[in-house]
Amino acid sequence: MVLPSPSYTITLRVEAPASQRATSNVVSAVAEAGAAVMGVDIVHSATKKVVVDVTCDTVDAEHGDQVVAALNALEGVKVLKMSDSTFLMHLGGKIEVRTKVPLKTRRDLSRAYTPGVARVCLAIAENPADARRLTIKRNTVAVVTDGTAVLGLGDIGPAAALPVMEGKAALFKEFAGVDAWPVCLDTKDTEEIISIVKALAPVYGGVNLEDISAPRCFEIERRLREELDIPVFHDDQHGTAIVVLAALINALKVVEKKMEDVRIVVSGVGAAGNAIIRLLMAQGARHIVAFGRAGALHRGATNGDEYRNWISEHTNEEGFTGTLKEGMAGADVFIGVSAGNILTGEDVARMNDGAIVFALANPTPEVDPIEAGQTAAVVATGRSDYPNQINNVLAFPGLFRGLLDAGASHISDEMLRVAAVAIAGVVSDEELNSAFIIPGVFDTRVAEAVAEAVRAEAERHLAEQADTAEEPVTV
Amino acid sequence: MVLPSPSYTITLRVEAPASQRATSNVVSAVAEAGAAVMGVDIVHSATKKVVVDVTCDTVDAEHGDQVVAALNALEGVKVLKMSDSTFLMHLGGKIEVRTKVPLKTRRDLSRAYTPGVARVCLAIAENPADARRLTIKRNTVAVVTDGTAVLGLGDIGPAAALPVMEGKAALFKEFAGVDAWPVCLDTKDTEEIISIVKALAPVYGGVNLEDISAPRCFEIERRLREELDIPVFHDDQHGTAIVVLAALINALKVVEKKMEDVRIVVSGVGAAGNAIIRLLMAQGARHIVAFGRAGALHRGATNGDEYRNWISEHTNEEGFTGTLKEGMAGADVFIGVSAGNILTGEDVARMNDGAIVFALANPTPEVDPIEAGQTAAVVATGRSDYPNQINNVLAFPGLFRGLLDAGASHISDEMLRVAAVAIAGVVSDEELNSAFIIPGVFDTRVAEAVAEAVRAEAERHLAEQADTAEEPVTV
Repeated sequence: MVLPSPSYTITLRVEAPASQRATSNVVSAVAEAGAAVMGVDIVHSATKKVVVDVTCDTVDAEHGDQVVAALNALEGVKVLKMSDSTFLMHLGGKIEVRTKVPLKTRRDLSRAYTPGVARVCLAIAENPADARRLTIKRNTVAVVTDGTAVLGLGDIGPAAALPVMEGKAALFKEFAGVDAWPVCLDTKDTEEIISIVKALAPVYGGVNLEDISAPRCFEIERRLREELDIPVFHDDQHGTAIVVLAALINALKVVEKKMEDVRIVVSGVGAAGNAIIRLLMAQGARHIVAFGRAGALHRGATNGDEYRNWISEHTNEEGFTGTLKEGMAGADVFIGVSAGNILTGEDVARMNDGAIVFALANPTPEVDPIEAGQTAAVVATGRSDYPNQINNVLAFPGLFRGLLDAGASHISDEMLRVAAVAIAGVVSDEELNSAFIIPGVFDTRVAEAVAEAVRAEAERHLAEQADTAEEPVTV
Repeated sequence: MVLPSPSYTITLRVEAPASQRATSNVVSAVAEAGAAVMGVDIVHSATKKVVVDVTCDTVDAEHGDQVVAALNALEGVKVLKMSDSTFLMHLGGKIEVRTKVPLKTRRDLSRAYTPGVARVCLAIAENPADARRLTIKRNTVAVVTDGTAVLGLGDIGPAAALPVMEGKAALFKEFAGVDAWPVCLDTKDTEEIISIVKALAPVYGGVNLEDISAPRCFEIERRLREELDIPVFHDDQHGTAIVVLAALINALKVVEKKMEDVRIVVSGVGAAGNAIIRLLMAQGARHIVAFGRAGALHRGATNGDEYRNWISEHTNEEGFTGTLKEGMAGADVFIGVSAGNILTGEDVARMNDGAIVFALANPTPEVDPIEAGQTAAVVATGRSDYPNQINNVLAFPGLFRGLLDAGASHISDEMLRVAAVAIAGVVSDEELNSAFIIPGVFDTRVAEAVAEAVRAEAERHLAEQADTAEEPVTV
């Protein structure tokens, strides 16, 4: 059953007879229609009529209409207006540009703008590294999308993707003080996206790719990493992978198994599945079988996609060729980043004892988490209304905080891995249990721990590069 | 003589003997070295020594070094550190991204981000016009440069141009509440710049082109205006032209001459000169002669640049072929957007009585404004240290405020003209005199007046377009 949610909060302006009984009836009718009443405010009161604002959580737009119909059916009651708090919150957008310096006097103006600014420009022209000191580059990340794989909505285009990118920018600031700016590109051409992001790079200290469909996202990320001198990170791949690894590290502690021993089934070989497999292997996982729509990926299977071929060649050492359901038998870990309701409680029951199930398809998980929990030891989803939410917001803010603080020019698999270990480490041994393998999204320790771990690794990496660069001189 | 300026304010940390006389000597030495002392703060005091911070305006970096040397020459005095307030102001950049919505609770998160945001995305996918209502597009302008013509510094590249674009964004917010974002492009290719700006457009309600060298700036602006459905404005052309027209409207009132009668000399046929000529003609100017490096542009002169050819064909009806100096004889108005010190007071003296001189080259005007003022009735420059500063900041914030408020899809010459008339109109008949033909940059009436005039004209334009669109149905 889908429950009313704060993402569908509506406020109904209702006219009703001025009696205790009439207003009680209004509230009852809303509750009986299945909505969760959050508050009732009197807007206007007169001898015979009152006008009240009833705010309630609903399931979806259709449910909102049902609530309105239920109220209009009451004697003497009329719904005057329905407003939707999610839309109200979005009016005019969710972020803004603010000035950090005073601009009230001629003296201010002559420093922040002409003529004083010319000296700052010349300093950067002479020493390009000064851009990180004297401009916003030091703290600014581009959130780049082409709108082709937005949430679960698919290819809705760059304009319709903007509310997500604004939300992402808001999260970057709120959780890690990073200035992020939406770049919604009106092109799907891989080469054009690559050349545009390269051309935009002077302003940014990092690039967060977002909601770009596979397999183009792989090529775009790979090329930008090669061709730019700022870190490039595709959140749908690596953000998810980081949080999955963090959760799995802690889940394995709960069931007392080891990463190198467990048999892991991964359902979904798109952007997220690919990155998850690579990061789990970096942490020592040895027995992974990945499943696409056509069943297990195995050596010798050809499908014309280099990224899937990589998986075929580097996983499934036993050459399993069956379906996902068949593959569940004897598995220790299930990680789903695929589609809703493709497995049942019985499939989970055929896993080994102490099974770990991460059913991350959104909004509907691969298997009902309540059913999975009948036999599995640990269950996690992507949803906020079950325990153990796997949410990228645990990773990307702190990750970029650390990269920017280090002045990193590149991002490495090891930086992703230490980010995951840092998230896992926030849950202390005393706190750890099957319903708390991963910190909550509002846990302020997370971004700090991730930033610190990534900064240290990035600085180590930069020092190593500097050593390498000096080698020809010293040898 | 160049005077000390607040754009070269330095703070010197100075160690000196702890005596009244020693600290007085410090201040005297700074003043004698030609710097303007702004303040003295005691940082540390002991029996024998004091440490003071001396803040002073200097002329340039070399002058700062001279001040330091003068202090170090004093007995027992030592400069410990020199810091530059312009650079201090730029540390970490001048703008930031701020969140406009609360993100403190699960409820907030589920509205601003997943899952609630999905409904907002879908609404925009179904009705693209909703992007102006539900995203930052409504209030956001891209400040686009390739760094090829930055201030008077020339082609310093996109990274070094960023402090100017940040400053511009700060002015947009401060003067008109517009959210502007720097787009510094690492390419000089005209076609690539055009296609990048087109691809970026979903996020923006307008484009301000900035510091792009001529003649590429003309083609880039023309094509983007044709191919985008948001207004595109090259500030170096039209921002300057608007303020020049505003100033000229008022200067003509002072000298009691009419736009259609006066003989106007324009020196400089680059981005600004071109736009100034067109806008003056839109306001009724009939007698313009434009001068490039090779003298007067006249019919029959070929130079292989369509923008200069346009000037040749549409101005200089008498076919004057001489030099700029020769052309000054008998002129009523001189407008210089070219190079410093190319004219003398004698050249100005050969103009008609009631001469108007706008010597706008920066930082050194075409003619010394003090010399010009010996015979000219009205003198204006681009500098803040003379009366009548022609400053683009009077135009662009209010202009885009009006365009965004109207939801304008295009910009017309008439919108530029009404913006100029609005700026001129801020100076009342009682305030008007030869030293006050244009409002000051901090006059808050300006942006409001410009925004209102442009909004009204843009709405009239949109209504007209709607009428035209309906015509096939009604006829």
